[in-house]
This record gives sequence, structure tokens and C-alpha cells, in this order.
Amino acid sequence: MGRLARDLIARTEALGMRVAGARLALPGLVDARSSSLRIAPNLGWSDVEPVPLVGLPGAVRVTIANEADLAGLAQVWGTPPAVRATRTFLYVSGDVGVGAALVVDDALFPGRHGWSGEIGHVVVDPSGARCRCGATGCLERYAGKEALAGAVGLGLDVPDDVLTERLRQGDQAARAVLDRAGQALGLAISNAVNLVDVDCVLLGGVYARITELLRPAVHAELMSRVLAAPWAPVEVQAAPVGEHPALTGGALAVL
Amino acid sequence: MGRLARDLIARTEALGMRVAGARLALPGLVDARSSSLRIAPNLGWSDVEPVPLVGLPGAVRVTIANEADLAGLAQVWGTPPAVRATRTFLYVSGDVGVGAALVVDDALFPGRHGWSGEIGHVVVDPSGARCRCGATGCLERYAGKEALAGAVGLGLDVPDDVLTERLRQGDQAARAVLDRAGQALGLAISNAVNLVDVDCVLLGGVYARITELLRPAVHAELMSRVLAAPWAPVEVQAAPVGEHPALTGGALAVL
Repeated sequence: MGRLARDLIARTEALGMRVAGARLALPGLVDARSSSLRIAPNLGWSDVEPVPLVGLPGAVRVTIANEADLAGLAQVWGTPPAVRATRTFLYVSGDVGVGAALVVDDALFPGRHGWSGEIGHVVVDPSGARCRCGATGCLERYAGKEALAGAVGLGLDVPDDVLTERLRQGDQAARAVLDRAGQALGLAISNAVNLVDVDCVLLGGVYARITELLRPAVHAELMSRVLAAPWAPVEVQAAPVGEHPALTGGALAVL
Repeated sequence: MGRLARDLIARTEALGMRVAGARLALPGLVDARSSSLRIAPNLGWSDVEPVPLVGLPGAVRVTIANEADLAGLAQVWGTPPAVRATRTFLYVSGDVGVGAALVVDDALFPGRHGWSGEIGHVVVDPSGARCRCGATGCLERYAGKEALAGAVGLGLDVPDDVLTERLRQGDQAARAVLDRAGQALGLAISNAVNLVDVDCVLLGGVYARITELLRPAVHAELMSRVLAAPWAPVEVQAAPVGEHPALTGGALAVL
């Protein structure tokens, strides 16, 4: 990745452009002040300082951020106001891990240490399967890419479009995994809505491609579990910036 | 309640004092702008306009608010800065219902409609018992006053100090209900901490009197379920304003 970035910087500068900076999007708990990644359960990394490892030229300022936070901000910065559903929303991204960003009035709600949005570790079933984080029954185990791919006989390295095409084909196994993932996702989102009162949820990552397949189960959970649902229905949409949102957010963040 | 309030206003004014206003603390979803209570599952009320029902003199301005929100603000307004643990915390109140207030930098985080903090309806076990809200396995069913009192053979109308004294006696039934409630509470608080990244939780209502009995089970859940726990341990304390916090918050709110 360092080589890719160095090549890109060299090519950009050869064209006479100046590189404004670089932001590294990471899954897990990012401590931006100390430039360290506290933990990324799905990478098996903890307490890593990734910036020196990338080895970019000293003139390029590199900072780090959580990838779901950047992808959430991409939905604000990367879409014109007319396209955007709302200025306050929960962005939920499905990949190997499931992450989220709470955006309030176009700004990220960071929490005390910048570690908000760890929806992947919201409990779906306390007696459920063990998660890479060490706890049991986390959302990731039911609605992460591993669960989605595994249930239809694909590996974790399957490209998103191949996975979502298989899920779209709609055989019994695909329908079952979509129902289970949608239910788990709906339950975790319901918990979030009950706690922070948002009325718009944008689905990103793998979810952006299968929003309409997940929506029935998600919607059923929201209607039965969100106390405010009859007065403030929760809208569930595919995120408008669906392709490489963390890259888009990272790029916009350094400008 | 209207008669009590009218008596109090009359006695106050007879002493030459002026009543600055009144705030009505209500459980459930309060729409402050339209002065209506959308729903209070434990009262069996929905879409009620309570202010005219109280029948206070027209000169007294009456507004309504959620009781957990007012009790949460009492922890800010009612304690000197030296006593306060932090300016950012989650206040969780145990009564018939379980409510919460998210306080960020001394201000309430209201959410889109002022309906944040409905932690009582965070799912503890999706296949669990039915809640008054219509969903299944909500925190209230495991850690609400009805569950606490019922499990030690007391009725819902038992005074808080009698209930907590019985729980303190520590027989097997009491220990079992405290473990179960603490575990459920710890799970719901873990979900909240993973989502909004707070490192201080203040327990109010019945919980304020039994914080040290609940803490072991709550703490165990937090340590195993909060991704950030090893780097940012979550402190669980009894709320400093423990007696009538919603009244205190309501009184301070009109000043």
C-alpha cells in the first residue's frame, strides 16, 4: 500500500500538482491525536502506529481516521445538499466488520475519544456465537461480510459485486441469510435509534448494493422495537456515496 | 397532582414569593413543542396533552419534559463542578421504566425530536419476554422496578427504600435478581457505550441505592463487550443527585 501511495504521489507531482495530504482509513478504534490504532479485531491488530509503516515522503502529512467515520462524512461532503436525505443520520457500513458513524447537523458525533459508532459490537443475541472482539452475539457475526458470504458458500475475499449478485439470485440459502442479517441489523439499528433518536439510516459498504433486499427485515424490527416509530418513521436508504466512500471521505477530509 | 400543585402555588404566593414556572416530568416520548406526550408505555398513555389536565392558574407557565432528561440535567445543574465526575456521561435511571439521558459537555443530547435515551427498550434478549411497548426482551423487563420487586415477592407500589433494603439483605432470590438485572443493564449500557463512546455512567432512581450491588455484573459486561474498555475504562457511579432528581432538574430548568 505504501508503494501504491508513493507511486501515486510521484505521478501526481510529475503532473505539476501538489499533494495536500493523506488520510489513512482504518477499521477499529483510531486515536487520531497519538496517530495510533488501538484495536482492529478483524485485522488482529492492536496498538499499532501505522503512519511510519506506510513510509510516505516526509513532505506529505499523513493522518489516520476510522473508515466508517470517513465514509459517513463522505455522505455529507460528497453529495450536494439537494441529493442528501438529511443533515442528521446514522451511517451503517457492512464489510468484514460492521461500522457506523453518527452524523448530527452535518458533523460527526465523535464521542469522548472519537470511538463512537461501534455498532458491529452491539449485542444481537447474548447467547450467540463468539466474535473476534471476544464478546458473544455481536452484530458482525450475523450481518458482517463473513456471515453473508459464508452462508452462500463464498469466501471472505469474494468481491462485493459477486457476493451481492449471488445474494440477489434469491435461492433459499440467500433469502435465509438476508433475512437473518436484516433482522440482526434492524435490531442493532433499533437500539441505536432508541438511544440517539435519528430518523434516517444510510446503508453503506456491501449493504448499499442490497439495501432493498435487507429493508423488509430491517423495517420490521424498527417498527416493532423503536418506541418513536409511529410518530417518527425511520427511513432506511442506500448511502448516496456508495463507491469507495472511505476513500472519498478521506480525500475530502484533507482538503 | 393538580390540587397539590395549586396548594403549593397558593402557599408560595402567600409568603410573598413569585412562582417562576412549572415543569412537568413525564416518562416516555415528550413533544415539548406541542406540549404533548406521544407515548408512555408504563402509564398506558398515548397522545395526551397533560398541561390543561393539571389545571394550574393561567399565570403559571407550565412546560413538559422527559423525566430522565430532567434527572440527567439535575446531575449537571444540581452538583458543584468539584463533585461532578465529568461533563460527559450517560445517566441511567431505574424505575417502573428504565430511562436515560445522554449529557455531552454539560448539555443534553436531545436527538432529532428530543426522544434520545430510550435505553429501557434496548434489546437484551430478542427471544425474551414481551414488554409493554409491544417488542420483546427489552431492558425494562429485566431491570425495571417491576422485575426487581416481583422477583423478591414485592409489589410494584413498594417504596424504593423498602425494595432496596430487601435486595440488600442478600438472600438467594435477591442475589439472583440483582445478577440478572446487573447483567441486562450492563449489556444495554455496553451497547450505548459502543455507539456513543462515553466513559462515565451515572445510575439514578432505584439504581442509585444499589449501585454497589449492581456494579459487579454491570462491570463484567462492560469489560467483555465494550471494544474500547481496555483503553478507556467505563466508570459506573451512583448519581450524585439521588433524591428526586427529576423534580430537582425540573425546578432548575424553569429558573
